[in-house]
Amino acid sequence: MAKLLPEQEHPVKAFGWAARDQSGHLSPFVFSRRATGEEDVRFKVLFCGICHTDLHNLKNDWGVSMYPIVPGHEIVGEVTEVGRKVKNVKVGDKVGVGCMVGACHSCDNCNNDLENYCPKMILTYNSIYSDGTITYGGYSDHMIVNQRYVVNFPENMPLDAGAPLLCAGVTVYSPLKYFGLAEPGKHVGVVGLGGLGHVAVRFAKALGAKVTVISTSPDKKHDAITKLGADSFLVSRDQAQMQEAMGTLDGILDTVAAVHPILPLLGLLKTDGKLVLVGVPEKPLELPVFPLIAGRKVVAGSGIGGMKETQEMIDFAAKHNIKADIELVPIEYVNEAMERLAKNDVKYRFVIDIGNTLAAATKP
Amino acid sequence: MAKLLPEQEHPVKAFGWAARDQSGHLSPFVFSRRATGEEDVRFKVLFCGICHTDLHNLKNDWGVSMYPIVPGHEIVGEVTEVGRKVKNVKVGDKVGVGCMVGACHSCDNCNNDLENYCPKMILTYNSIYSDGTITYGGYSDHMIVNQRYVVNFPENMPLDAGAPLLCAGVTVYSPLKYFGLAEPGKHVGVVGLGGLGHVAVRFAKALGAKVTVISTSPDKKHDAITKLGADSFLVSRDQAQMQEAMGTLDGILDTVAAVHPILPLLGLLKTDGKLVLVGVPEKPLELPVFPLIAGRKVVAGSGIGGMKETQEMIDFAAKHNIKADIELVPIEYVNEAMERLAKNDVKYRFVIDIGNTLAAATKP
Repeated sequence: MAKLLPEQEHPVKAFGWAARDQSGHLSPFVFSRRATGEEDVRFKVLFCGICHTDLHNLKNDWGVSMYPIVPGHEIVGEVTEVGRKVKNVKVGDKVGVGCMVGACHSCDNCNNDLENYCPKMILTYNSIYSDGTITYGGYSDHMIVNQRYVVNFPENMPLDAGAPLLCAGVTVYSPLKYFGLAEPGKHVGVVGLGGLGHVAVRFAKALGAKVTVISTSPDKKHDAITKLGADSFLVSRDQAQMQEAMGTLDGILDTVAAVHPILPLLGLLKTDGKLVLVGVPEKPLELPVFPLIAGRKVVAGSGIGGMKETQEMIDFAAKHNIKADIELVPIEYVNEAMERLAKNDVKYRFVIDIGNTLAAATKP
Repeated sequence: MAKLLPEQEHPVKAFGWAARDQSGHLSPFVFSRRATGEEDVRFKVLFCGICHTDLHNLKNDWGVSMYPIVPGHEIVGEVTEVGRKVKNVKVGDKVGVGCMVGACHSCDNCNNDLENYCPKMILTYNSIYSDGTITYGGYSDHMIVNQRYVVNFPENMPLDAGAPLLCAGVTVYSPLKYFGLAEPGKHVGVVGLGGLGHVAVRFAKALGAKVTVISTSPDKKHDAITKLGADSFLVSRDQAQMQEAMGTLDGILDTVAAVHPILPLLGLLKTDGKLVLVGVPEKPLELPVFPLIAGRKVVAGSGIGGMKETQEMIDFAAKHNIKADIELVPIEYVNEAMERLAKNDVKYRFVIDIGNTLAAATKP
């Protein structure tokens, strides 16, 4: 018997859009998903956010892409089937899945609800699952996920504008909490006003901090202040503005994923201030040591969040009416959306209307 | 009347050894110190450690040297005179002075006993004092210092081997405490086994941590384990050893003052591990961002410590019998000592026997 292609290994028919090579062009793709295990939740995908990571993976920017790739890790849908050991989720519930679908569940990280830092963490797509098959993401008709990786969507959280929170939301919420950047009385800076930055401002405000947005683009000031609720705005290329703000921030959340100088940001921090990086530039940054030593300052990194914290984040967001600003697009628009995303031409997140535009079977 | 030279501005005659230019060569030097103010403590210098910073300043490596320079900021001596408002110190007491002799005393840092991070902090030598004159360090017959910057030396702390603690000791003690690197149950790495590193091992052990020394020199293993009490030793150039130790350390204190790769060190850290830099390389380091994000890791800096903590450090050291390993030298040997220090040819700190070898008047 001939060996099956990776996308044919499972018994349940699935349909999505995939890139076949590093052109990154997405087109319809028939594949398969596993049968429902006793701890699995199967759901019909309704919406899926487009994360900048999707673009990197489509184009093989990091050299780890396994084609065909079905991207998407900001996935929201409605449950269609649950395994017999599944708790807390039932058919008809609205659920979400973010960046990961598995981990070892036995290391210190997993035991501390930090599956995101487990060395065996399994990504939602372009990763090898525990059964040896390749994972496929949310640009598809349905998902099947172990219950540990399923987030319950609160009643009042919109499914479309809530989807990006599953990646962008927890990526900023987790470090704001862990590093104490956004407590009442604290003054936090948010660098970069894109998919991550715009929700970071909203979370930081809701957590009680004073918020300053730092951006290269002066034209983002209006949105930052009036639409997102930031208290102030700094143009990072304006040396006079930056000089005046020296030593005023308790912490900075830096969402920029390109190589950029961090010396000016370190200067904005008070003694014991923390610069937390959540974007991954393609090359190492320059780390000037004296400014760290002269103020006992910290540069740290943070990557998404554990599942317990992801649920906490979405509940907090629902309570404080936090959601992403999105541009809802049909699946047919996805390649154009990617081109615009590459130019940062979106305010602030594309979300694909999978449920209404992906013509395909939604049940096995 | 002709303008006085900087070294002639004060009424009290002083004598020391100074470098006159960036050859760095030290030779006898007559200068002056201020009259005793009401908060001042004057003391006869008995011992002064030689810090690597002295060498940098002598040679103008940082471009900020003001010649003539009298170096020395690990100074121990016996009090000869106190101003009328001086508390806690009396004539005959053994005292120490470290890296700083002044600050603004009104900013948040000063109010939080962090004079070391005050933007107006005044260094013990090669700095402009609050009266506009230049500060001169401990390679000299006597010092006069505001009482806030005087450390009481405990009875059982040797004056010679205790001197280096005033800079090297607090430089490592402060971050071990602040960043929680050396609590019981923690496993800390110490990178570099020089003046700072060797006392760092002792403090970390006394604070209750398991200690691993990381060094480029395999021949330092014997000292690290048997003499200093480290639990284990890693040769940083041995990839197999480093690979095996991946993810085992809670924190690392990095004392290396040269440019060096931090990626291997980040790999040694557990999730949430902290790499704390206390050496100042001449150029920025390369900061790889992904390893930070993949483990919520931290790179931080720390510079000496406040005066309250410096006193706490010396009291802790006395209680736990911690001192530096020194090579005691006469002042006539100081230029040769500098040459050897430049080659790291010392175990582990030179201390100058000022009291017995600097022939000069010791009182005004």
